[in-house]
Amino acid sequence: MRSLLLLSTAALLAGAAPPAGPLTPADVVAAAPASAWRTIDPDDLLIMDLAGGGRVVVQLAPEFAPVHVANIRALARAGYWNGATVYRVQDNYVAQWGLNESDKPWPAGVTPKPPAEYTRALRGLAVKPLGFADPYAPGAGFVDGWPVAYSPKAGWANLAHCYGSVGVGRDLSPDTGTGGELYAVIGHAPRHLDRNIAIAGRVIEGIDKLSSLPRGTEALGFYRDKAQYVPIASIRLASGMPAAERPAYEYLDTNSASFADYLRVRANRKDDFYIRPAGGVDLCNVNVPVRPKAAGERG
Amino acid sequence: MRSLLLLSTAALLAGAAPPAGPLTPADVVAAAPASAWRTIDPDDLLIMDLAGGGRVVVQLAPEFAPVHVANIRALARAGYWNGATVYRVQDNYVAQWGLNESDKPWPAGVTPKPPAEYTRALRGLAVKPLGFADPYAPGAGFVDGWPVAYSPKAGWANLAHCYGSVGVGRDLSPDTGTGGELYAVIGHAPRHLDRNIAIAGRVIEGIDKLSSLPRGTEALGFYRDKAQYVPIASIRLASGMPAAERPAYEYLDTNSASFADYLRVRANRKDDFYIRPAGGVDLCNVNVPVRPKAAGERG
Repeated sequence: MRSLLLLSTAALLAGAAPPAGPLTPADVVAAAPASAWRTIDPDDLLIMDLAGGGRVVVQLAPEFAPVHVANIRALARAGYWNGATVYRVQDNYVAQWGLNESDKPWPAGVTPKPPAEYTRALRGLAVKPLGFADPYAPGAGFVDGWPVAYSPKAGWANLAHCYGSVGVGRDLSPDTGTGGELYAVIGHAPRHLDRNIAIAGRVIEGIDKLSSLPRGTEALGFYRDKAQYVPIASIRLASGMPAAERPAYEYLDTNSASFADYLRVRANRKDDFYIRPAGGVDLCNVNVPVRPKAAGERG
Repeated sequence: MRSLLLLSTAALLAGAAPPAGPLTPADVVAAAPASAWRTIDPDDLLIMDLAGGGRVVVQLAPEFAPVHVANIRALARAGYWNGATVYRVQDNYVAQWGLNESDKPWPAGVTPKPPAEYTRALRGLAVKPLGFADPYAPGAGFVDGWPVAYSPKAGWANLAHCYGSVGVGRDLSPDTGTGGELYAVIGHAPRHLDRNIAIAGRVIEGIDKLSSLPRGTEALGFYRDKAQYVPIASIRLASGMPAAERPAYEYLDTNSASFADYLRVRANRKDDFYIRPAGGVDLCNVNVPVRPKAAGERG
């Protein structure tokens, strides 16, 4: 059989017995108790449905970019994104959506020029340290389910640009972007953008609907023709959807014992396929586990 | 204007005057003298043409995986990949191609069970150090145009799994793969695969033809139906193509002064868009510059 990277498919089989050998990260997540999971607030779930089918779900990060997140919520509630499209897809970088250079007025409740929420105070955050060196910051770890870089000495913390991170498009400084144009990272983590742009959330489901779009052929991956723009049917907050249609998600508490196990196993793969565990891991290679909640669990 | 990340488009405009402000990485590459570029041997260029259009070019790495590369060359010369497809595309991980569980006999010149070329001796390699911490190895840097992790103490070096890296599919250890099934990384660098699998090269053109394919819906991103397989028209060595059709490429010498400048600027972006230079960079965020050679320069 020549189909590489079979890895441990056992964990994918429903009802499979617990594996006898070393655990995979998926094994650890599957074994995490209910108490280790945190429900995501429906006000923090932005649901984007593509007109051609496919849903992209973004978890918003009000702890890190409160004004930008308030703007995004106000834009969603006001139906600002009617007619929005994905108009830029740059390989190994970002997919970007919104109204693209529209002059549509901002709806009520939007702060047109938010402060530069590129970092926040480290104080008050309960950090789970990554435990390995980060080339972009003195410290790296996790806060309330988010990958974060920080400086204990200078006292700042920032959301890290990882695969799936959602940022607020802006023009050149001192513009900080309003929130009408958003992008998601679809390539290797562009961490050089950290502390230079506001991250407002991350894609927790459906990133493949963006990452598999055709790449734009203009500079920076913009589509050449408007006919190539990918139409978006709707962008809504879960909190604004009828209860019966409302999706729900939970993430693994990054201060839980289960997450500590998951992190350790991610850094030291010893299951089937692996011969030499790395003994380390990159911040953006530790995807915080997120899963849908079943209807009966949504409370 | 709300179209984020405009960055410095100046460098993209043909004939633009040198920028007045801080240099971008692209500015540094554009200014590199001809003496800083190294032509890639046509025996190290694997040209994959998709049946539906689109070319993917792989640079092979005989210094790091000589037996696997010899196999790949023998397979290409023998037409082994007639009828090959891309049959697996897993989001944020890999796209994989070949004959997929075929029993086709190996052609002459193929070593069915190569040694585990996951690392090689550090001795004899002229390393340009990255200069920043790497979470996966004691050292990180560049050798002859390749991103490399290494241990000065233990004396090994390995090609790093970065975006675009091409590896040799294998089953569980001690199988090392033969070379008939190859994969390219299409997501955040899966560095935990370093030293666990043979990297035989990297995509230097057309990775977007793989990264934008629909994701497979079976476990590990395999396509569910054979009808979804993406047919490959041909996989050839450039050295086996008629001279008039033969593509040619060159890469920036990673021991050149230009590459040192490029690395420094990548780690300290100060151009237009940036407010806070990172002061560091991840090994896989320093893409070694590669460019086509014009027909007249192919000598």
